[in-house]
Amino acid sequence: MELLKQRILKDGKLKEGNILKVDSFLNHQMDIVLMQEIGKEFRRLFPDTSINKILTIEASGIGIAAIAAQYFGNVPVVFAKKSKSKNLDGALLTTKVMSFTKGIEFDVQVEAKFLTEQDHVLVIDDFLARGEALKGLIKIIEQSGATLAGCGIVIEKGFQDGGKIIREMGVHLESLAIIDHIDNNQISFR
Amino acid sequence: MELLKQRILKDGKLKEGNILKVDSFLNHQMDIVLMQEIGKEFRRLFPDTSINKILTIEASGIGIAAIAAQYFGNVPVVFAKKSKSKNLDGALLTTKVMSFTKGIEFDVQVEAKFLTEQDHVLVIDDFLARGEALKGLIKIIEQSGATLAGCGIVIEKGFQDGGKIIREMGVHLESLAIIDHIDNNQISFR
Repeated sequence: MELLKQRILKDGKLKEGNILKVDSFLNHQMDIVLMQEIGKEFRRLFPDTSINKILTIEASGIGIAAIAAQYFGNVPVVFAKKSKSKNLDGALLTTKVMSFTKGIEFDVQVEAKFLTEQDHVLVIDDFLARGEALKGLIKIIEQSGATLAGCGIVIEKGFQDGGKIIREMGVHLESLAIIDHIDNNQISFR
Repeated sequence: MELLKQRILKDGKLKEGNILKVDSFLNHQMDIVLMQEIGKEFRRLFPDTSINKILTIEASGIGIAAIAAQYFGNVPVVFAKKSKSKNLDGALLTTKVMSFTKGIEFDVQVEAKFLTEQDHVLVIDDFLARGEALKGLIKIIEQSGATLAGCGIVIEKGFQDGGKIIREMGVHLESLAIIDHIDNNQISFR
């Protein structure tokens, strides 16, 4: 997605350790017009009209998924939760995920009633690196008996192996920008 | 907002301890059409055209704020973060907030560059009970030098004192549904 790549080059900030910060437009401050274009692009890439639900994970995925849902006939968005709350008390679909950014393992949880065998689910998230969160969401869909329609990612770090692993699982994965490598403060897209 | 009140009565679930669960349409699964109506209602209640930014807090506020922003000329949405991430490394606006739902105190953080003296900020969140999160967001806006245009809340628990405290601060607070009390599994709106 050219608009996104140009925006990453213009406003993305590179930090030590190949960390790309896109917090001015994607995951701390959100550019709503860009989110709308991202939503339209996901619809183009996943034209499957049987998609009746979008699954994402808190926190950064939520805004992207909510805006994108508007281009999928306003299907409901379910966001997986990362921590136990008193409000989470029904039967749960749950799996463990390692966050390398935060350096901790956490539980990903979805109330079972929100994913059923009748659902055709598109997964949306902001980043794909090692693929831990995405594998967790796919596991939860498998537990639920729902059908995985595909995974839409805004930015994939192609120099980490998450995308390769997910694609080798036979999942329809689409990343709007794949970063092949970052060298000397230069971003190269695939 | 009549549509919202009807939806709370239809799909809200009451749990022990006056806990109202609205996770089937608001804060775990999101009804995007309802979110759009909520966004339009916030615009009607806050017609101030100087509003140029929406501030919310992860996680449940994000989807509501992102959809609402579309009715405010697609202004950017900033979401405050609740935990320290490696990705949060600029100058920070920060305050401590007590979560009664989760039983812990946490830091609320916004990178300083995303709230400036030029900003007229509308705060949006899903719930208002004791007002801890909302007071935290207001403190962060004060630290930044930005102007607080108002606070838009989807559901206020009128039997807790957050709304009273915030209104007595002189803040323009609008709650789309105020629950006055919950007795014998019956919800009464103000």
